[in-house]
Amino acid sequence: MNALTEKRYLTLPEPSAGDTLAARERLLAALPEGCRLTLGCMQQLYPVLHEAGYRVTVTLCPGAGGTDVVRVEPGDTTDRNYGLCLDIGSTTMQMELVDLLSGKTLAEAACTNSQTQFGANILDRILAVKENPDNLHTLQALTLDDVRQMIERCCAQAGVPPEAVSAMTVGGNTTMLHFFLGCDPWQVFQSPYTPVFFDPGVLRASELGLPIAGNIFCMPAIANYLGGDITSGLLMTDLDTREDLALFLDIGTNGELVLGCREFLLMGAGAAGPALEGAVSRSGMRAEPGAICRIKIGPDNRLRYETVGGLPPKGICGSGILDLIAEGFLSGWIDSAGNLQKSASPCICDVWDDTRQRNVPAIIYAYDGNVPLYFTQDDIGEFLTCKAAAHTMVATLLESVNVSPSEIGAFYLAGGFGTHYDLESAITVGLYPDLPREKFKILGNSSLAGAKRLLLDTGCRARLDQIRALATYVQFGEMEKFVENMQAARFLPHTDASRYPSVMRRLRERSKTFPPGKLAAERSGAD
Amino acid sequence: MNALTEKRYLTLPEPSAGDTLAARERLLAALPEGCRLTLGCMQQLYPVLHEAGYRVTVTLCPGAGGTDVVRVEPGDTTDRNYGLCLDIGSTTMQMELVDLLSGKTLAEAACTNSQTQFGANILDRILAVKENPDNLHTLQALTLDDVRQMIERCCAQAGVPPEAVSAMTVGGNTTMLHFFLGCDPWQVFQSPYTPVFFDPGVLRASELGLPIAGNIFCMPAIANYLGGDITSGLLMTDLDTREDLALFLDIGTNGELVLGCREFLLMGAGAAGPALEGAVSRSGMRAEPGAICRIKIGPDNRLRYETVGGLPPKGICGSGILDLIAEGFLSGWIDSAGNLQKSASPCICDVWDDTRQRNVPAIIYAYDGNVPLYFTQDDIGEFLTCKAAAHTMVATLLESVNVSPSEIGAFYLAGGFGTHYDLESAITVGLYPDLPREKFKILGNSSLAGAKRLLLDTGCRARLDQIRALATYVQFGEMEKFVENMQAARFLPHTDASRYPSVMRRLRERSKTFPPGKLAAERSGAD
Repeated sequence: MNALTEKRYLTLPEPSAGDTLAARERLLAALPEGCRLTLGCMQQLYPVLHEAGYRVTVTLCPGAGGTDVVRVEPGDTTDRNYGLCLDIGSTTMQMELVDLLSGKTLAEAACTNSQTQFGANILDRILAVKENPDNLHTLQALTLDDVRQMIERCCAQAGVPPEAVSAMTVGGNTTMLHFFLGCDPWQVFQSPYTPVFFDPGVLRASELGLPIAGNIFCMPAIANYLGGDITSGLLMTDLDTREDLALFLDIGTNGELVLGCREFLLMGAGAAGPALEGAVSRSGMRAEPGAICRIKIGPDNRLRYETVGGLPPKGICGSGILDLIAEGFLSGWIDSAGNLQKSASPCICDVWDDTRQRNVPAIIYAYDGNVPLYFTQDDIGEFLTCKAAAHTMVATLLESVNVSPSEIGAFYLAGGFGTHYDLESAITVGLYPDLPREKFKILGNSSLAGAKRLLLDTGCRARLDQIRALATYVQFGEMEKFVENMQAARFLPHTDASRYPSVMRRLRERSKTFPPGKLAAERSGAD
Repeated sequence: MNALTEKRYLTLPEPSAGDTLAARERLLAALPEGCRLTLGCMQQLYPVLHEAGYRVTVTLCPGAGGTDVVRVEPGDTTDRNYGLCLDIGSTTMQMELVDLLSGKTLAEAACTNSQTQFGANILDRILAVKENPDNLHTLQALTLDDVRQMIERCCAQAGVPPEAVSAMTVGGNTTMLHFFLGCDPWQVFQSPYTPVFFDPGVLRASELGLPIAGNIFCMPAIANYLGGDITSGLLMTDLDTREDLALFLDIGTNGELVLGCREFLLMGAGAAGPALEGAVSRSGMRAEPGAICRIKIGPDNRLRYETVGGLPPKGICGSGILDLIAEGFLSGWIDSAGNLQKSASPCICDVWDDTRQRNVPAIIYAYDGNVPLYFTQDDIGEFLTCKAAAHTMVATLLESVNVSPSEIGAFYLAGGFGTHYDLESAITVGLYPDLPREKFKILGNSSLAGAKRLLLDTGCRARLDQIRALATYVQFGEMEKFVENMQAARFLPHTDASRYPSVMRRLRERSKTFPPGKLAAERSGAD
């Protein structure tokens, strides 16, 4: 373990008539050049040094332009050292208290990001600051309160006092880190697209009013839309060290992706749309209790589902939608152009669309009591646009270096998407390329995991520098053929079906065991 | 002017599609290596940079291990830059707001140090912390409140917002700087005599909750009793650069002195006693309105006085006592052994001493209404002990390098003493050596003046390092003959009268114009 912070047990020379060096200078003389004491640590020197017979343990934490001595304790306490890692998601914040000697997570906390008071959408929060600059202070205060409460909970759970925490690492996208530090993120979304900072530098906990002893390390961004959540995630991959190419994809409403190896890192980001997070269709919802999260259509042509928490269905979340489209395609309910086939299932019928003031075809996938929950032809269209955008970002990045998907050695999936969605469904709809399944690496919340890794390996600081040095930012909007490629990707799985041999195989197998004609005849409804 | 802080006007490249560097990184790219932005400055970047068309002025302030960018302003504001200097005296605090371009003081403030709520004596305050550690926080809070109020007053006077202050330099003795920073000064007075710090390093104003933009620079101490007030004072001398020897003396209840040249600095400190600050005799007082501050005994053998503010006399302060002894000696009222000569003046008579429960000889030097104000034989004894201690510290330092007083090229007098006392009287009583008067340099509050000099000349930081490197600390208590020398110095002006030729000459002249016999015959009373 080569943790970000270090504890050192020191046996200082005891003062005498001939050696009346002050406590601070006495301590510094026993440490390497470039060490400085924080004010908080200096205030502890008396009586700690005196009472401990000048045998003390100091905690060293990297600081701006040197090493900060952030704590002094009596005696030898080198057998314990703690850090916190934090992921500031726009919806959810997660924290872990980590034992920096064993690498174990001792406590965890999560909470809804209180910024959501200003809107679920990041843009709403940014606009709130534009309307009234005082809201910036409020948004920061809300965030810091959340963080303080999580620190309290983690520390209480593990029985570790906050002042024993020697560092906190923080992942989050550019806007989240701006709010955390009280900086206006207006230009994250606004021309000239230059946020206040990519890397805010090392911050002292006292500057943010956080009760820990150590410094705060925010994950550096590479560009506007490639924030600290992405660099943090990259620490969980080997993109920056491997010889062959690998791809990293973090997809939600926006997609961020990185293609590279130890020679270069090509990065891009773009809007994918809200469909992958369930924010499509009138019955779409987040993956909360009662949300349909898994769907299968069996050989009996019946649709079966699972809900979060096993509760009666209230709507459908992103992973449910993905399954619905994939299974619908494999079962012939949806053709490769995305059109609903009314003849394929009795679940497919016309429903009244208030907005359009006319009937539209839809799949009634469940009933909430007596009310049908349905997914319309338009919803499918919106989903296809999202998946096409995501697919095309990957394809475009690969094309830009003349590489075919099969040359990718590993495909890292970050974020809630990679964790909660069914990989086969994602490939079936053509969201991901049709690679051998073992090449897919599910990272989960890699922003949090990367922040934890930095706590445990100070070498990650150099890696982050290296990652930023290797990075080239690709502007998808400016690339030729992006729109054209996206059109081609609106098909299931793709206009060029030969790119998806495994999907074609499944399609053939499915139609053999249960030919659509038979299904249509049975007209079995949803469970 | 080579001020401690620097303003730079920058024309940054405007962002474009091909140049989307974040604001912080854009700014740092235009500055030398080793610059860092404070959090406060980073928070200003948007909208300042954008609105100012990327033409901004940054304020650079030395920080720990690099240069801190503490402020960013739109446009070119290099024509204004302000600093604060502060002296934290144990009784009085003084502050000046300084124009760092012209060197002019734009505003001044002073206040009683609120720590005096815990006692006029420093030791009382230290003991209060020993009794209850919470008092440390209270003492710091009181000090910081005083400082904040003075900042407010200075800034309001000069029409300068606090956030335009780019640095604050602070002089003060070791205990005062400890309270200022919330560090326990117990070991300033207590074995092993190792305070928490000599040099606390550069501090951020935000760490102390002070509203200025720039950093805080406390004057470094050399030893326990040779605090930041002394090093600050030395900046007002040329001791560290001159070829021949000079002496620096700051005397009050304690004496601190430095003898040296560019080759070495010999430093010592010791208790002188409270007599020089008026805290001797029942009618002794501080130099407040109504205190007798000047005394002359004329050829008519009459004692005449001046009071502070011209008010009716209430008591006598240090400078009055010094004159009383000097004039009394020259007029034959007091002999060279310090004994009152009743025959010399009708002002000298016996008074009842409550403590001793017997009559003691005294000089009735004034009347407060009908109540006589007097100075007893014992008071004289106490004064002589104080002046002997001060004299002996100087003599011992000189002897330790085998130098006679006449070899001293300059004698710097720091603090209230040097400013308010009559130099002739001080030499007459043998407090200072009998040097040509032009060698005496009156510095006034050199702790404040040195702090101001540091604001205006960043080269002083190197000088302070040099001063600390040249310094050798002499322990008077451990020196041979110190007590013996002190005994010899209890005489007026000294047992060895040949050391005071100018005093002997004045004594002869005075007795010629007005022989003591004649005075005794006239028996004229005090005015």
